[in-house]
Amino acid sequence: MTAIALIIGAGSGLSASLARLFAKEGITVALAARQIDKLAGLAGEIGASRFTVDASKPDQVEQLFNQVEQQLGVPTIVIYNPSARISGAIVDLDPVEVLRTLEITAYGGFLVAQAAAKRLLKVGEGAIFFTGASASVKGYARSAPFAMGKFALRGLAQSLARELAPQNIHVAHFVIDGGIRSDRRPEPVDKPDSLLDPDAIAQTYLSILRQPRNAWTWEIELRPWVETF
Amino acid sequence: MTAIALIIGAGSGLSASLARLFAKEGITVALAARQIDKLAGLAGEIGASRFTVDASKPDQVEQLFNQVEQQLGVPTIVIYNPSARISGAIVDLDPVEVLRTLEITAYGGFLVAQAAAKRLLKVGEGAIFFTGASASVKGYARSAPFAMGKFALRGLAQSLARELAPQNIHVAHFVIDGGIRSDRRPEPVDKPDSLLDPDAIAQTYLSILRQPRNAWTWEIELRPWVETF
Amino acid sequence: MTAIALIIGAGSGLSASLARLFAKEGITVALAARQIDKLAGLAGEIGASRFTVDASKPDQVEQLFNQVEQQLGVPTIVIYNPSARISGAIVDLDPVEVLRTLEITAYGGFLVAQAAAKRLLKVGEGAIFFTGASASVKGYARSAPFAMGKFALRGLAQSLARELAPQNIHVAHFVIDGGIRSDRRPEPVDKPDSLLDPDAIAQTYLSILRQPRNAWTWEIELRPWVETF
Amino acid sequence: MTAIALIIGAGSGLSASLARLFAKEGITVALAARQIDKLAGLAGEIGASRFTVDASKPDQVEQLFNQVEQQLGVPTIVIYNPSARISGAIVDLDPVEVLRTLEITAYGGFLVAQAAAKRLLKVGEGAIFFTGASASVKGYARSAPFAMGKFALRGLAQSLARELAPQNIHVAHFVIDGGIRSDRRPEPVDKPDSLLDPDAIAQTYLSILRQPRNAWTWEIELRPWVETF
Repeated sequence: MTAIALIIGAGSGLSASLARLFAKEGITVALAARQIDKLAGLAGEIGASRFTVDASKPDQVEQLFNQVEQQLGVPTIVIYNPSARISGAIVDLDPVEVLRTLEITAYGGFLVAQAAAKRLLKVGEGAIFFTGASASVKGYARSAPFAMGKFALRGLAQSLARELAPQNIHVAHFVIDGGIRSDRRPEPVDKPDSLLDPDAIAQTYLSILRQPRNAWTWEIELRPWVETF
Repeated sequence: MTAIALIIGAGSGLSASLARLFAKEGITVALAARQIDKLAGLAGEIGASRFTVDASKPDQVEQLFNQVEQQLGVPTIVIYNPSARISGAIVDLDPVEVLRTLEITAYGGFLVAQAAAKRLLKVGEGAIFFTGASASVKGYARSAPFAMGKFALRGLAQSLARELAPQNIHVAHFVIDGGIRSDRRPEPVDKPDSLLDPDAIAQTYLSILRQPRNAWTWEIELRPWVETF
Repeated sequence: MTAIALIIGAGSGLSASLARLFAKEGITVALAARQIDKLAGLAGEIGASRFTVDASKPDQVEQLFNQVEQQLGVPTIVIYNPSARISGAIVDLDPVEVLRTLEITAYGGFLVAQAAAKRLLKVGEGAIFFTGASASVKGYARSAPFAMGKFALRGLAQSLARELAPQNIHVAHFVIDGGIRSDRRPEPVDKPDSLLDPDAIAQTYLSILRQPRNAWTWEIELRPWVETF
Repeated sequence: MTAIALIIGAGSGLSASLARLFAKEGITVALAARQIDKLAGLAGEIGASRFTVDASKPDQVEQLFNQVEQQLGVPTIVIYNPSARISGAIVDLDPVEVLRTLEITAYGGFLVAQAAAKRLLKVGEGAIFFTGASASVKGYARSAPFAMGKFALRGLAQSLARELAPQNIHVAHFVIDGGIRSDRRPEPVDKPDSLLDPDAIAQTYLSILRQPRNAWTWEIELRPWVETF
């Protein structure tokens, strides 16, 4: 029986890299996102299933896990990637949008972790991984909402690592400290390797996933060689 | 002209200590809380004004600042104390309550900071202080929502310290690492000074408030001598 | 009976500010440094005693504490300020000098803390304060030796805070994140308050010293309002 | 041409696991330690060379690198594992031993990193890895010297990551947070996986070593699933 990975926020380049790498490793992949139309190509390529979800809504998250379970089985690898960022001087921010970014970046992480934990504790094993950013550990000026959301997600991950690791569930938090290359953001020709390759990030996720439980990592950061920190 | 301090979450013992100390220092005090009936005694004692507010609601926060401004003037010292905590295994938590704790602990901090910043940037000076907890820097097992809220509040404070300090607004975050003594939680007779005295905490807030801008603190922690950390 | 403060590394501007402030508060001051000739003026001004010591030498540190104890009494306030910094690419550093900077910045802190603890544990109270820098929490490029020394001093302070606080000895670590103004490094005219005033730093040390033991701080940072961090 | 890995502090169980894993990956291994007699078996098993060195002595470290270079070539993978730990109340520690532990745990790391950097900057690539411990990020009571040494080593690693990464040298620091199983410290029968398996740790070192430079990690922690943190 193959493992099943559920990737939330599947529209990102990192999610696509994770999906391809997992599939290559023989893991069944479930892709979940608010918009799944544009995931048809990826899904077809690697034989993944697609699920529509707004991860900030309790009912939808519960429904998502039920659907995945019915169609594929319990996902023992759950990855939470969604985030929303609004920038600007604090006086210029729209309070409604700020709450929305918190819901997407952090509260959705809680909902997904809760739904995952309910099932993984029954199965007796599994992994829940959270994708962080530079803002997870450093609150930048003019970026308060993103700092709030990513700090909160890190607090969630740390709390769950303490709570769930002794119950055989591997919780990890990845601090991605730098830009990720994509079609819209190609590598600058004169600055080789100055943007993270999503395939390289995915490879590190897989390494952490492969760790035996006597040597688990709860947090790791990744950045390009030339990134200032 | 005296300075005006606005204390949000005025129902706590720490808030009462801050109010009394500020009043003693000649600072005009405005007390804001969801329930202000029980603040009548304190307000009368120190000549403070009371304001009703649910700090997690944008409209109410804006109205609060307008009322304080009209009645007393612009508050140049703003302190955010509210927090909500629910504990338990992640699988047992009520998602609706979790979101509510985030709104009270962190989102309200944003709303208050935004309303304060709008006014302080015009005045050209001021202080915004946030009260944190052990959970601000350590995510404990079975306490994910509090970790999320307090980590988020710390991210907010750190971001604002970077953004607003160079604009002459002192932003600080206080990590209160231990229990605070109160009528309901008296000092254990056999463990002297094992709970924080809210008057002692307030004294440190005042010390930080008195710092000249060439030597500002953005974060400080406080704990009883016998507290494990 | 007045308290006695022993300031090690007394030649710095911060030490002078601490000495003057303590004297003003009625505390008897002992100044210790490798060169005490130039401390004659300060000592005369505030009625302080001077002691010669190389704080990186076990015998000299033990002798220092014995001398202070004989002449003045047990110093219940002990402040460790010495540090040495050499900068440059790692490949260009002189290994002999690197070891020397570790001895001055960190090992001397251990020796002083040990000599102080031996006496304070008998007295049953006291304070040991360590002066850190930006490099205490961030290892900068081309500054490996200073990072090593200041990180080590912070590790010492944190370990001692955990060990000695429950024995009624207040251990604190001050992260001074910015340049300190002095005769040799005057405030830039066009950048007011961009350098820390040593008198302002000293005032914060005094505030921490005055904390009752139910609300002790072990670490605090200080920086100018315009300092990037 | 195969890569060459130089492992300093080769007598530990982790070093042996690293040596075997590297050899299996086709990497030529050089083992360096103060006592190399007992390394004969391991060296024979994997075809490794042995070198005697006290890594806290500048001359010996320089000589070591020269010997390795002559016999095998420039080692482009350099791992620093030595540490010394003395525990006890601060008042009971022997100052001479404390200095010695700093020299072994931290100063030796500097000497090795300097000798490595001199050669790697000429080659234009390479990796320098440092092995940390729980004490690298938390100063425990009654363990001041170990905290000083490990904090210092972390400061060194962080400084060098900032300095050398942009010069194509991967610097990483591994926080090993838990006991490592060995012949002398076997796994408790009733607590499976409660001690780190050195082979599992080594596998994570290899994963970090294999990272492309667009996604480098400078710090990662590892602990058993049931370890409290």
